[in-house]
Amino acid sequence: MIKTPYLLFLGDAPDQLAAKVAIGIKDWRPENAVGQFRMDGCKADLGLTDMSLVEAREAGAKTLVIGVANRGGVISKEWKKVLVMALEEGFDLASGLHNLLREEPDLVAVAEATGRELHDVRIPEVEYPIANGKTRTGKRVLAVGTDCSVGKMYTALCMDAEMRKRGMKSSFRATGQTGILITGDGVPLDAVIADFMAGSVEYLTPDNDADHWDHIEGQGSLFHVSYSGVTMALIHGGQPDALVLAHEPTRTHMRGLPEYDLPSLQALRDMALPLAKVANPGCQVIGVSVNTQNMGEDEAKAYLAQVEADMGLPATDPFRFGAAKLVDALAAV
Amino acid sequence: MIKTPYLLFLGDAPDQLAAKVAIGIKDWRPENAVGQFRMDGCKADLGLTDMSLVEAREAGAKTLVIGVANRGGVISKEWKKVLVMALEEGFDLASGLHNLLREEPDLVAVAEATGRELHDVRIPEVEYPIANGKTRTGKRVLAVGTDCSVGKMYTALCMDAEMRKRGMKSSFRATGQTGILITGDGVPLDAVIADFMAGSVEYLTPDNDADHWDHIEGQGSLFHVSYSGVTMALIHGGQPDALVLAHEPTRTHMRGLPEYDLPSLQALRDMALPLAKVANPGCQVIGVSVNTQNMGEDEAKAYLAQVEADMGLPATDPFRFGAAKLVDALAAV
Repeated sequence: MIKTPYLLFLGDAPDQLAAKVAIGIKDWRPENAVGQFRMDGCKADLGLTDMSLVEAREAGAKTLVIGVANRGGVISKEWKKVLVMALEEGFDLASGLHNLLREEPDLVAVAEATGRELHDVRIPEVEYPIANGKTRTGKRVLAVGTDCSVGKMYTALCMDAEMRKRGMKSSFRATGQTGILITGDGVPLDAVIADFMAGSVEYLTPDNDADHWDHIEGQGSLFHVSYSGVTMALIHGGQPDALVLAHEPTRTHMRGLPEYDLPSLQALRDMALPLAKVANPGCQVIGVSVNTQNMGEDEAKAYLAQVEADMGLPATDPFRFGAAKLVDALAAV
Repeated sequence: MIKTPYLLFLGDAPDQLAAKVAIGIKDWRPENAVGQFRMDGCKADLGLTDMSLVEAREAGAKTLVIGVANRGGVISKEWKKVLVMALEEGFDLASGLHNLLREEPDLVAVAEATGRELHDVRIPEVEYPIANGKTRTGKRVLAVGTDCSVGKMYTALCMDAEMRKRGMKSSFRATGQTGILITGDGVPLDAVIADFMAGSVEYLTPDNDADHWDHIEGQGSLFHVSYSGVTMALIHGGQPDALVLAHEPTRTHMRGLPEYDLPSLQALRDMALPLAKVANPGCQVIGVSVNTQNMGEDEAKAYLAQVEADMGLPATDPFRFGAAKLVDALAAV
């Protein structure tokens, strides 16, 4: 569990895109984002107050989150200076970088000396159990995609936000590094040992109030041969009551697999639902989430209408047009 | 890669069953089993020549394989004496124990000093790639089970042995610790990091002659919620040309999951085949392997006949009645 709220470290980001993680935190958990820390030459700007370490600490920030990709996969000397000072000022550090904080001996030494914590969210910090398959109380929804990176995380975050707006009991359950940094907690599922994948998802989504919804962040795709095992573990470990089908209509082949076509939404439904019913016989497919970012507004709306007609399910782009239709369908489960 | 042939260490095994791994090696790769090493009080006997370390070395043995479960999960002082002497005599050590050889500082020190290798087959020794899904040459067959522990490894070993007997090109590809010790090579799939599971199976079953068959050792079950992700990675990483359905008819519930019923063979076929076709559109279900160890001979034969009629597929218990029917079906693929 990463202590919130955060000071978002943007470093010397070459452009706005490099600060994707920080943008996610600011968009989805603005209450966690006390301010931003920018170094000389930083080209990203979240529109948050620029703060020094001392100012951020006085404003209540507990953790400095590296919200930016590093160049060349190394933590530069310039970054290191700020990170060491942050530890000395009393901040924990959190990072989703491939270059782990814990592999930097100076950071480890200063963290030990100052009693601060280093969180590398790419690496599990918990010994997860083997899944036991026991039925849990509360409700769970999982987005499954025709491909990787079609908007499953955003779908879950949008549904969670809509439920909170309506006063419903709702949690976003992160299974990837960006999601973990956004919420401060979760399971880095792609880094979990095979035998414990489903157990880690059970651990992430425990018993809850009967009217509480867990929005489990999806990963991979049953049709993506590189990562389908991770998707399978989410379906069985998550024992979802509801599935949302996620799709990006302009994709011409599976991500990173030029020889593989995307499946249809019908094929996805027919593959995922019987598998989900193994763990939860009452599971239903409740709607379709389409990532329309590469379509004009009219084109997107026409496409969604066609999907609704073809599938007999509510369809929306929850980030563009809101998640109300999906939450209406979940509320009816 | 573990150096063969082996001296099989039976230690102070309390009974024959404790030497399960050694029995597997002797049954399936007798050419790898130069002799057995038994300590005082050993109640297991493989019928191999009892050898001292010096005798075994002179007979050509390269690795001392711990073919027996240890008591209480610890490597005892008595065992340790033998293991250290074996390193000093020039043997590598190989083990599938939970208590890792590499976690014993004295074994590590002696292995370093003598230049010998310690193989803990529960732990991956390779950095596997992410799966790329590219079509590979050669043929592959995978057994998928209605449950865990229904005989998938024995099915693969039996088909491999039958093919070798016929002079066909054939390899058993181990994905579990017993299989790895039997053959000296393989992937400990349940210990691989989630993102690399399918890639490790691609690595294990590379391009081969067009008429060569890989018999990939199956793991878990698509219907076993604890381990289904591992099964999924085998189906997509292995891109099998043929599936064999594996079943144990007297099982009353899924192993370790008392609330879960076993699926029918039809349900297994209908779940596994569409998933397999994602990676290999030509994949076929070619037969059924039934573990009849808990049935009388007449009962077993009647059951197999019924399965053949119901499924329209050849069915056998390959360990009891031979794998000829399955290999005939594979040869026709």
